[in-house]
Amino acid sequence: MAKLCLIRHGQSEWNLANKFTGWVDVDLSETGVQQAQHAGELIAQSGIQFDQAYTSVLKRAIKTLHYALEASDQLWIPEMKSWRLNERHYGDLQGKNKEKAAEKFGADQVHIWRRSYDVLPPLLAADDEGSATKDRRYADLDPRAIPAGENLKTTLERVIPFWQDQIAPKLLDGKNVIIAAHGNSLRALTKYLENISDADIMDVEIATGDPIVYDIDKDLNVINKVKLDEQ
Amino acid sequence: MAKLCLIRHGQSEWNLANKFTGWVDVDLSETGVQQAQHAGELIAQSGIQFDQAYTSVLKRAIKTLHYALEASDQLWIPEMKSWRLNERHYGDLQGKNKEKAAEKFGADQVHIWRRSYDVLPPLLAADDEGSATKDRRYADLDPRAIPAGENLKTTLERVIPFWQDQIAPKLLDGKNVIIAAHGNSLRALTKYLENISDADIMDVEIATGDPIVYDIDKDLNVINKVKLDEQ
Repeated sequence: MAKLCLIRHGQSEWNLANKFTGWVDVDLSETGVQQAQHAGELIAQSGIQFDQAYTSVLKRAIKTLHYALEASDQLWIPEMKSWRLNERHYGDLQGKNKEKAAEKFGADQVHIWRRSYDVLPPLLAADDEGSATKDRRYADLDPRAIPAGENLKTTLERVIPFWQDQIAPKLLDGKNVIIAAHGNSLRALTKYLENISDADIMDVEIATGDPIVYDIDKDLNVINKVKLDEQ
Repeated sequence: MAKLCLIRHGQSEWNLANKFTGWVDVDLSETGVQQAQHAGELIAQSGIQFDQAYTSVLKRAIKTLHYALEASDQLWIPEMKSWRLNERHYGDLQGKNKEKAAEKFGADQVHIWRRSYDVLPPLLAADDEGSATKDRRYADLDPRAIPAGENLKTTLERVIPFWQDQIAPKLLDGKNVIIAAHGNSLRALTKYLENISDADIMDVEIATGDPIVYDIDKDLNVINKVKLDEQ
């Protein structure tokens, strides 16, 4: 039996500005910092002791992890970062205001991009200055692994290998794990863990800064799920 | 050719209180936080891009690393923590005021404990509530590896295996490395890197929050050393 805690990063500056963010490395807002610290206090109250932390290579998730671990006095646990836990890549929509995108492409189209499981957003050209291919943090990656735009399906397809190779072995070993990540990388994990259908997963919302704790059995089945904020 | 940056944590709350700290997990003071952020600004100005970070399992070093990496927009780089980079364990002196220790044991004796290369401090009993054997972060360690008190010699003896197994291979691979650690674990590394004698090393002071950058050649020789604060 092991515990798995998922925590979505607190509010970012672009959540506040109503922009599509994706792989853009936007910082937490002041509210986001407070949410992360509050999450850490909830973890401290729960008494859960982690053995391993995972996060993305984006600072809003990394900082959320650090604030939460610090507030629960577990900043010393091992931490591993991976692009595979990054937010869904929003393609050419990244950096664009959501309202202006709706004016340009139509609200229905934007709704489809945001809420369909397997429709890709407009892709970002590889030579666009915002392309992840130009970012040093992805320099060791096979260029074909770097997305130009993702839906939840393709996000899940790159999250699950990391789950299987890194996270699942720890849980099988009885280690308690915390993952600080993003709305859609956590949605992908939730879909996989809870066997949620393609249709239903898009209605699952993961609240920012509210740690979700699963009890996981020796076959990696979920046997309990609690939201610490509702304890 | 690779770059190696050493950074000693900023002022801690017990530096301020003039207490022996060692392995006690004391937080940074407000000044210490500012020193760490300033170190990050110096790193940003230098333009050095790191590939890998190392730190101890003590929050004053971990937080110094995080503040420095955040200020130089490199929070996403891989980070590895190890007890082998911890501060020298100060045995039974940990938690004691330095002035009161001098009154109790004599200023000469305290000077010897602080400044000799190979004299051990009074040891901490394994059943002392402050013993690291009772701390969860060392639970996976061979109990015989957990010190009850160290001098610089024994500190060096546990730092260098980590250098050889983890850090040196990265530098040999041309990777730029940052190490955020403590006065004595960094002094041990400095002694090893610069071939400083047992007698001379005790006079080497490593300033808090002032990053030291070495250029390291393909045989791990130091070919240049700069303090960023003096650039």
